[in-house]
Amino acid sequence: LGKKVNVGLLGFGVVGSGVKQIIDNNQEKLQHQLDCEINVSHILVRNLEKYENMVGQSTVLTTNPNDVINNDTIDVIVEVVGGVEQAREYILQALQAGKHVVTANKDLIALHGTELHRIAKENNCDLFYEASVGGGIPLLRSISDGLAADRIHKIIGIVNGTTNYILTKMNDESWTYTDALQKAQELGFAEADPTADVEGLDAARKMVILARLAFLMDVELDDVTVSGISGLPLEDLTYGQQLGYTMKLIGTATKNKDAVEVSVQPTFLCNEHPLASVKNEYNAVYVSGEFVGETMFYGPGAGSLPTATAVMSDIVAVIKNKHLNVNGKQYIEPLYDKKLLDKEDTISQFYVRIHAKDETGAFANISQLFKQLNISFERIIQKPSKETKVAEIVIITHKTSLANFNKALEKLNESDVVKNVASYYRVEGDA
Amino acid sequence: LGKKVNVGLLGFGVVGSGVKQIIDNNQEKLQHQLDCEINVSHILVRNLEKYENMVGQSTVLTTNPNDVINNDTIDVIVEVVGGVEQAREYILQALQAGKHVVTANKDLIALHGTELHRIAKENNCDLFYEASVGGGIPLLRSISDGLAADRIHKIIGIVNGTTNYILTKMNDESWTYTDALQKAQELGFAEADPTADVEGLDAARKMVILARLAFLMDVELDDVTVSGISGLPLEDLTYGQQLGYTMKLIGTATKNKDAVEVSVQPTFLCNEHPLASVKNEYNAVYVSGEFVGETMFYGPGAGSLPTATAVMSDIVAVIKNKHLNVNGKQYIEPLYDKKLLDKEDTISQFYVRIHAKDETGAFANISQLFKQLNISFERIIQKPSKETKVAEIVIITHKTSLANFNKALEKLNESDVVKNVASYYRVEGDA
Repeated sequence: LGKKVNVGLLGFGVVGSGVKQIIDNNQEKLQHQLDCEINVSHILVRNLEKYENMVGQSTVLTTNPNDVINNDTIDVIVEVVGGVEQAREYILQALQAGKHVVTANKDLIALHGTELHRIAKENNCDLFYEASVGGGIPLLRSISDGLAADRIHKIIGIVNGTTNYILTKMNDESWTYTDALQKAQELGFAEADPTADVEGLDAARKMVILARLAFLMDVELDDVTVSGISGLPLEDLTYGQQLGYTMKLIGTATKNKDAVEVSVQPTFLCNEHPLASVKNEYNAVYVSGEFVGETMFYGPGAGSLPTATAVMSDIVAVIKNKHLNVNGKQYIEPLYDKKLLDKEDTISQFYVRIHAKDETGAFANISQLFKQLNISFERIIQKPSKETKVAEIVIITHKTSLANFNKALEKLNESDVVKNVASYYRVEGDA
Repeated sequence: LGKKVNVGLLGFGVVGSGVKQIIDNNQEKLQHQLDCEINVSHILVRNLEKYENMVGQSTVLTTNPNDVINNDTIDVIVEVVGGVEQAREYILQALQAGKHVVTANKDLIALHGTELHRIAKENNCDLFYEASVGGGIPLLRSISDGLAADRIHKIIGIVNGTTNYILTKMNDESWTYTDALQKAQELGFAEADPTADVEGLDAARKMVILARLAFLMDVELDDVTVSGISGLPLEDLTYGQQLGYTMKLIGTATKNKDAVEVSVQPTFLCNEHPLASVKNEYNAVYVSGEFVGETMFYGPGAGSLPTATAVMSDIVAVIKNKHLNVNGKQYIEPLYDKKLLDKEDTISQFYVRIHAKDETGAFANISQLFKQLNISFERIIQKPSKETKVAEIVIITHKTSLANFNKALEKLNESDVVKNVASYYRVEGDA
C-alpha cells in the first residue's frame, strides 16, 4: 500500500458529509483501486462545536480556510461551501498552492469555469466537477470520454430535481403549483427561497456546463434563454395530458451547423419520449450524437450520498492521475469560437392556449390566421364555455420557427375573435 | 500536431467500416483532443477485391494478419473479426507484439478476458472493450470510473437488441414470436441463425462482463443461469399487460453480502420500471449502488456507427494514455474470490399460469396450496373456458425464494385440480 492521500473538505454540509461517509465506509474498494489509504484529514466548518462529535480523531475541524488550503499534508481539496465569490477565492488559492480541486459547485463553474481551468492548467492541477450536473449520474465523463469521437448535436435534459418533483406532482396528482412547491419544501427537495430552482437558473447553469463540454465552445450563462415554472397553471398540464404530452422543465443545447442555442423552459414532451417518464426528483439527460444516435443517462439529481458518489469519482480520478503523474493534463480546450444561433430561427412545435369569443366562425378565423403563416396543426382541443361566452382552444402546431410562431401570437393578439392568448410552450417529441 | 497514430483493423464488417468512417469524417475533433492525426493504415480482410474500392490510398488492405499484427508502424489494433479462437490468437499475438488492443468481442472477453488482461498487463498494453456491452452506450467506463467509489449491489439490463425488438413487437403489436423473429431477420436485427440471441447466450456473455466489473469478482460464463425467449407464448405477454407488466429478456447480476448471482431470463417488469419502456433494438442497463441509488444508461445496443462510437472511445483512451505514457495501467484486478449465491435462495416475485379443472373449489384448492407455503398473491386473473372444461388462472405472487416457488410448482403438478402449469416467469419491479 502506497502513501496515504489526505483530502481536505471546504464545507461539511449535505455533500461534504456524504463524501466523508463514503471515504470512511468504503476503504476496502477504494484502497484496492488506488493502492493507498484515503483520509479526510481537515474540514473547514463555520462552527466547531456543531460538528466536533461527528468526526473521529483522524480528522481536524477548523474555522480557518488556510489550515486546509495551504496545508502541505493535503493533496486534494473538495470545495462544497457553495456560493460563488468565496468559493472562487478558495479554489484559486488552492490551485495556486498546487492542490487538485474537486467541486460540486455549478454556479461557480458556469460563471468562472474557463478562468479556473486556465489556473488549474498553469499549476498542473486537476479541476473536476462531475457532481455539478446530474448529481450522481456519471454524466460529464460519459460525454467527454464515452462520446469523445462523436459529434454531439443536441442535449435535452431534466437537470433540476426540485422542479421535476413539482411538475410530477402537478401532472400525476393534479396538485397546484403552490401545493407542490410547499410539499417539496417540506421534503427538503426545495429550499426556503426556491427562486434559483423554479425560475430555471439552476438548470441554466448546468446546461452551460453541458453545452461547453458537448460543443467544445465557451458558452456563457448570459447566452441562455431561461424561463421557469413558477405559477404554471395546472390546466395547461391537464390539457397536455389529454393531448399525450407531459410538462417538464427542459434544458436544451442544440448545435446547428456551427451555431448553438441553449435554453431552459417549461416544455411539453411527447409521452413516448424517454424523458417524459422521468419522475420526481430524478434527473436525466438525453444526448444525440451524429454517430451514436440517441443515448440517455438517468439517476438521482441531488441528495447527499448520490452527489457524494460523483465527487468521489473525481477524487478517485485525481488520485489515479497522481499515481501516474499525469495530473492537470485532461482538460480539453474549446475548439470552436462561440457562435450563437438566432433564437428566432429555432424550429420546434408549439402548444398554445387561446381564449376566443364563443361565436360562429371564431375557430375558422383562427385556423385561417395560422394557415396564412403556413403553420399547420397536429392536435386541437376546443372547449366552449357557455357561461363566460369564452371558448378555450388548445392547439399543438407542427414544426415552425420561433419567429413565425411569434408572428402568429402577434396576429392572435390583434384578432377580433381572440380574447387573449392564455399561454404557450415549446413542444419536444420526435427527437 | 504530434506524430501520426496508425490504427490497424482486423476485420472490415459492420463495426470495422463504422470505425473507419468516424476516423475519416471526424479528424477535426479527434486531432483537437489528441494533438495528432489518426489513420486507419491497414485492414485485414478475407477478400481484397470486395473492399478495394472502399478505401483510399492511405489504407492498405491485406489478407495476411501478420501485416497488421506485427507491423511496426501500427500502435493500436482493433479486433472486429468476431468468433473466439481466431480472435483470441490475433489478440494474444498483438499484445505480445506490444500493440494496444480494442475489441468489441463480448464472446471472447466473457470467455478469455482474465487471461487477455494478464497478457496485456505483462506487455504494458491497454486492452479495452467498451463496445462489447450495450453498443454505443458508454457503460463500462461509467461503472468502473463513474461509480468507482460506490458498492454496486444490483444490475438489471436489457442487453440484447434482437430479443428486445422481438418482445416489443409481441407486446405492442401482438405479433407472435415467429412473426416477430422473421421481421427482425428481414430488418437485419436478427441473424439467419438467431440462436445465440434468442436463447439468451449473447446477453449472458454481456452480463458476465458487467458482473466482473461491478463486483470485482471473476464470474464465469458457466456461472450464469440462462433461459431464452424462443417460442414464448404471446398469451403470457397479453396476460402480463392486463396485470401491468411488460415482458423483457432481463439480465440480472446481484450481490447479496459476499455472494453473487447472474442470470438471463424472460422476466415480467412492472410497467413503472424505467426499463419497461425501453423499446425495439435499444438497450438499457439499470445499476443500483449503495451510495448513488438508482442510475440508468440507455442507448443503441448495436449498429455500425453506434458500436463504432464505443470502439472509438477506446481508441481515444489508448492514444491519450500513449501521450501520457501510462498505457497498460488502468485495469483493476478482481478484489474478491468468487462466491456464488445459491440460486434456490434468490428472492423475487413470480408470474405463473395454471390450467385448472373448471370445477367448484379448484381455485380455493390452489390458493390453499400457496398459502401453506406462505406465498401470497399480488394479482390474479381467472378465466373460465366452458368448452374445454379448463380454467386458466394467472397469478403474480409476492416475493418468495425460488426454492419455495419450486415447491409450489411441485405441489401444483401433483394437485388433483390442476391440469398443468402452462408457464412461469420471474417478476421484477419494485427495484
